[in-house]
Amino acid sequence: MKILITSPAEFLNFKAKAFRVMSMKYKPEDLTRLPRSVEYKNRMVHLIDQRLIPHEFKIIKLETVDEVAQAIKTMQIRGAPAIGAAAAFGLALYAETAKVESKEEFFNGFYRAYEILKNTRPTAVNLFWALNRIKHLAEEHREDSLNEIRQLIVEEAQKIADEDVEANLQMGHIGAEILPEGNILTHCNAGSLATVHLGTVGAVLRVIHKEGKLKLLWVDETRPVLQGARLSAWEYHYDGIPLKLITDNMAGFVMQQGKVDAIIVGADRIVANGDFANKIGTYTLAVLAKEHRIPFFTVAPLSTIDMSLKSGKEIPIEERKPEEVLTCGGCKIAPDVDVYNPAFDITPHKYLTGIITEKGVVYPPFERNLKKLFE
Amino acid sequence: MKILITSPAEFLNFKAKAFRVMSMKYKPEDLTRLPRSVEYKNRMVHLIDQRLIPHEFKIIKLETVDEVAQAIKTMQIRGAPAIGAAAAFGLALYAETAKVESKEEFFNGFYRAYEILKNTRPTAVNLFWALNRIKHLAEEHREDSLNEIRQLIVEEAQKIADEDVEANLQMGHIGAEILPEGNILTHCNAGSLATVHLGTVGAVLRVIHKEGKLKLLWVDETRPVLQGARLSAWEYHYDGIPLKLITDNMAGFVMQQGKVDAIIVGADRIVANGDFANKIGTYTLAVLAKEHRIPFFTVAPLSTIDMSLKSGKEIPIEERKPEEVLTCGGCKIAPDVDVYNPAFDITPHKYLTGIITEKGVVYPPFERNLKKLFE
Repeated sequence: MKILITSPAEFLNFKAKAFRVMSMKYKPEDLTRLPRSVEYKNRMVHLIDQRLIPHEFKIIKLETVDEVAQAIKTMQIRGAPAIGAAAAFGLALYAETAKVESKEEFFNGFYRAYEILKNTRPTAVNLFWALNRIKHLAEEHREDSLNEIRQLIVEEAQKIADEDVEANLQMGHIGAEILPEGNILTHCNAGSLATVHLGTVGAVLRVIHKEGKLKLLWVDETRPVLQGARLSAWEYHYDGIPLKLITDNMAGFVMQQGKVDAIIVGADRIVANGDFANKIGTYTLAVLAKEHRIPFFTVAPLSTIDMSLKSGKEIPIEERKPEEVLTCGGCKIAPDVDVYNPAFDITPHKYLTGIITEKGVVYPPFERNLKKLFE
Repeated sequence: MKILITSPAEFLNFKAKAFRVMSMKYKPEDLTRLPRSVEYKNRMVHLIDQRLIPHEFKIIKLETVDEVAQAIKTMQIRGAPAIGAAAAFGLALYAETAKVESKEEFFNGFYRAYEILKNTRPTAVNLFWALNRIKHLAEEHREDSLNEIRQLIVEEAQKIADEDVEANLQMGHIGAEILPEGNILTHCNAGSLATVHLGTVGAVLRVIHKEGKLKLLWVDETRPVLQGARLSAWEYHYDGIPLKLITDNMAGFVMQQGKVDAIIVGADRIVANGDFANKIGTYTLAVLAKEHRIPFFTVAPLSTIDMSLKSGKEIPIEERKPEEVLTCGGCKIAPDVDVYNPAFDITPHKYLTGIITEKGVVYPPFERNLKKLFE
């Protein structure tokens, strides 16, 4: 595994180390006690129902494409890479269970399933990436037998999931090499629950914890849907990582006191110039990181990078229903007033120290170095 | 009414206008439909129970000093000026109802009441200011008859409350002269509920709304105790001000989109160099305001200014119980993990455009100009 190192961010006093990771020290089972958050078994998509955590741990089994789409829409599963794998398994489910008379009928149904899954959420690019990867494969093999096509789709979906775990493991080892020892702050959940296993940010945190380099993890609760309080606090505490939960508006005060050595967050879409969409609140953390000269990284697989968009301004931002803001954890907290509820925000690349991927760390200038990454 | 104008903040492209407000255009009843949030009537302290809003509007009547202290501690009443008035009324209640045989016995009980009220909350300085004002008066009149002393204390407490309303009305008119037309963002509740009537920030918002200059008010929900979602959204909506409620972590994204023309917040304590303590999350807004070149004001009466402390580092910050973070609006939202829960943060004066007081707007250099204000 070769690490891509370019110039370190110029606005931060952060020293990037040029290095080469020779092999991966840890396997997933060394790093977490959690099972995979999404799997395909016995013609069913198995998901950890994330809306029930931390109160209940329950695996639900979905038997139709509509059920999978619904689970993505209602955020029973969320997190860009996990959504990608779930959607891929949705197509596998269709491929294996579709009762059709002809290949044409199979493809008609396949495209319907593709559309249903594609229209679940607009911001995370992994969803489209995973669906298109399977669609292209199926189209390439249109001349094969129906049974072969069914099998190819199931295998490809499985491969997408397995590759996601492998990529996270790589990101974990790479990130651990460059992060400073001390206190890390994270936002939302880019942990095991946001991916197939381990997490993007989650893998990095688990490796540095394993190596004794993580003193304390600050977990932003991440309103309105509370992925930090409900999911990150739960899964990192479950794996024995020392943490403190804070409300989102405390992050600045914690940084002001010198108690944060680095910030790492996930990404829902990174575009060609390094701008990226991530959970609402990420941009605020980026501004705070700049003000306090704290290294600020996003951790994401290549499948999150969308080279077709030039700048963050082109990323569609999902607005969700007002109830998410008017309630909290199921309780009504406000009178019925108007609400603005963007699910994501855009962080311009100028705030970013680096992008930790499974192929290495990308530093500024991002436009040039992201291009290099895909060459 | 003369307005103190000094040099405008240099880091912002904000033009301060030198002016003189000749008279106050509006009376409290022109600006709000709300009653006073704390009153002293018939030997009882009457409070709007703020823990019940927005679900229920209820006025509670307190008959003992312990009940008043408890109401402050549990935040049935909160907001620095409202706490000050409530504590003053607590002493009035003691003065009027104490069954004592001698003046000495009266003063012993008075000092006990003073201590009980003083030990309710540590950060807001108005509490100590109001209690000390009454204590000094009582001590000055130690030679008067017991009945005279009782009456003086009740009158002084009433005066503290009336002056608070008058001061807010002045701040409202002064603030309205210098704020730009457009969208304002506020945090927590420095409205009518945080004071005796109208509010500090609340008075400014009400005057600019009355004058048609307030396009939209962005209300931060203000976790963990949700004073924005519960109280500000409720009271400003009640008075017909157009607003949108957001979670705290959305403020940065709203500013990035150019949708905020000024930020105004309250203060729990302002010290001699202009640093100030306010509800947790204020510091983050200050950093965001600087990044987006948005004018950032605090609105507070002179009683909030503590010239005995040189810098914000000396202000004690109250840490509240973990349950506030682990729950939201009464619902459990997180597993039982460690929590950090500072109720306030400190905003260094360098982020501040100006301090709107009842005597005028104080601009940088704050150390010099605050001194001038008290000369």
